[in-house]
Amino acid sequence: MKNGNALKPHDRLAAYLADDMAAVGDLIRERMASKHAPRIPEVTAHLVDAGGKRLRPMMTLASARMCGYDGPYHVHLAATVEFIHTATLLHDDVVDESAQRRGRPTANLLWDNQSSVLVGDYLFARSFQLMTEPGSMPVMRILSNAAATIAEGEVLQLTAAQNLATGEDIYLQVVRGKTAALFSAAMEVGGVIAGADDATVKALFDYGDALGIAFQIVDDLLDYRGEPNATGKNIGDDFRERKLTLPVIKAVAKADTEERAFWERTIEKGKQEDGDLDHALTLLAKHDTLSATQADALDWANKAKAALAPLPDHDVKEMLVDLADYVVSRIS
Amino acid sequence: MKNGNALKPHDRLAAYLADDMAAVGDLIRERMASKHAPRIPEVTAHLVDAGGKRLRPMMTLASARMCGYDGPYHVHLAATVEFIHTATLLHDDVVDESAQRRGRPTANLLWDNQSSVLVGDYLFARSFQLMTEPGSMPVMRILSNAAATIAEGEVLQLTAAQNLATGEDIYLQVVRGKTAALFSAAMEVGGVIAGADDATVKALFDYGDALGIAFQIVDDLLDYRGEPNATGKNIGDDFRERKLTLPVIKAVAKADTEERAFWERTIEKGKQEDGDLDHALTLLAKHDTLSATQADALDWANKAKAALAPLPDHDVKEMLVDLADYVVSRIS
Repeated sequence: MKNGNALKPHDRLAAYLADDMAAVGDLIRERMASKHAPRIPEVTAHLVDAGGKRLRPMMTLASARMCGYDGPYHVHLAATVEFIHTATLLHDDVVDESAQRRGRPTANLLWDNQSSVLVGDYLFARSFQLMTEPGSMPVMRILSNAAATIAEGEVLQLTAAQNLATGEDIYLQVVRGKTAALFSAAMEVGGVIAGADDATVKALFDYGDALGIAFQIVDDLLDYRGEPNATGKNIGDDFRERKLTLPVIKAVAKADTEERAFWERTIEKGKQEDGDLDHALTLLAKHDTLSATQADALDWANKAKAALAPLPDHDVKEMLVDLADYVVSRIS
Repeated sequence: MKNGNALKPHDRLAAYLADDMAAVGDLIRERMASKHAPRIPEVTAHLVDAGGKRLRPMMTLASARMCGYDGPYHVHLAATVEFIHTATLLHDDVVDESAQRRGRPTANLLWDNQSSVLVGDYLFARSFQLMTEPGSMPVMRILSNAAATIAEGEVLQLTAAQNLATGEDIYLQVVRGKTAALFSAAMEVGGVIAGADDATVKALFDYGDALGIAFQIVDDLLDYRGEPNATGKNIGDDFRERKLTLPVIKAVAKADTEERAFWERTIEKGKQEDGDLDHALTLLAKHDTLSATQADALDWANKAKAALAPLPDHDVKEMLVDLADYVVSRIS
């Protein structure tokens, strides 16, 4: 799929939801501040200035709008979702010892790990303050469950990512935690706050879940076949960081004894030498696992679209369908 | 005050609240588990086994009981409070690069910083799940506000602790954040869940706030004059870690030029030599700041007791009054 002059789906959504997105931006800036600790606005301003597409809060706004919500609280929930996301980014960068995020130095590099851990905690707490404001118990349950699932997925990744016994089922669990849980919760709370019926809320959840999984698989695939300029990442970062992702999991499943020894040495033991990445790419090609991974991503994007199919026609619904296509267009 | 054969106040409270405390323990064990990530129960079991007095959840139970609550949800709130506390301990140990906690190796030492950060996040998320269960909006606001105040206090401490410009006002703000916010919230939610009137809830808050401040000042004082066996800490740990606490803040306020240069070198610049701790202790003695710090702790304990004075007589009230005396008895 080519993305020529036509606006990309998330830009169309952003334009459609421009007023709401501006309100979310204002609320985020207001709540990211701190009266007492000057380090907090320093770090959070760095994050806000770095931008990002704000895909997750947009999903909450889109979901609420599609379900006919006309109250003010979708803005609070969208900001909540972005705060949870930002807090996990701060902590992820500490855990991964990252130096770059969105093309800029990470907070842990500019300040220190301490600031990233504690400002992340502050944003988590702020997100929980925000989510109480609409006064909806189901919404609080959905979002606090999502926060627990995210943390659980991140911890699971710690132990599973360098273990060759990790199969596609565990990979999916990690991905559901680290990525899909917030996508699905973001969609779900938009519907719940709008008073949508159970079937609709389930459809919104399923869309977010499948879209999140597609999104993460695409990310993991691009790590092995993207163009550095397009992704802001270098080919093979996950390999160098010994992260077992879907392309390698599929290759390990088909590995002969010698190939298995290679993966044990490079991923499990982390003893990497010059030429190992090239050899890894050769093995992925031999077993055609990049194509198989691509097919999985397309499947999940199709599941996302199928989830929305029963819902009534709506401009936003069309844009969300296009968004699912767009997420996988980077690998098509 | 001697603590001979008579039970200490927190042991009397624990005995009085034994059934409730057992229920809290069960709930904590149940919710600290994780279906998917085996690292989580490993780390949390280490923390639970290490014990600790569970002072904070006991305060919630005591407060609810004193206010006549007979429902089941004080147990959830007590567990919530302990989860928030445990999550902050995990993150504190990463921030402080601690090796020991409650006489045992810390989780960051036994596993790694990654596990401590992410399992801490998991416990935060679990605490927010738990706090939604009673379905009380005011309770959620109090506890999510407390979580934000705690994180804010920790961040403030990062920048304030090595800055000689930090005065007693900023110290108090840090202490309110890192310690008193959870004490006061623990007391407050016990009253709110019991349907206590505003004046009572305010009294409970004030008690927790003052007790938390007394508790932290005692801790900071003992760092300069405790007996190692009694505290599990070595004399001068805060000095070596360049943490500006009340005894030093009072000494800096009275320092002449030469003394100020000493504090700048040892605390701000962290260039410490053999004999510096002894010289620091000499300066604290010269300006009599340990006695002044002790007097402040006693003042706060008295404020805690005064806050409870207007409340009706109750066995629990007596034990809470005794608890305030006990907290400062370690320095009397």
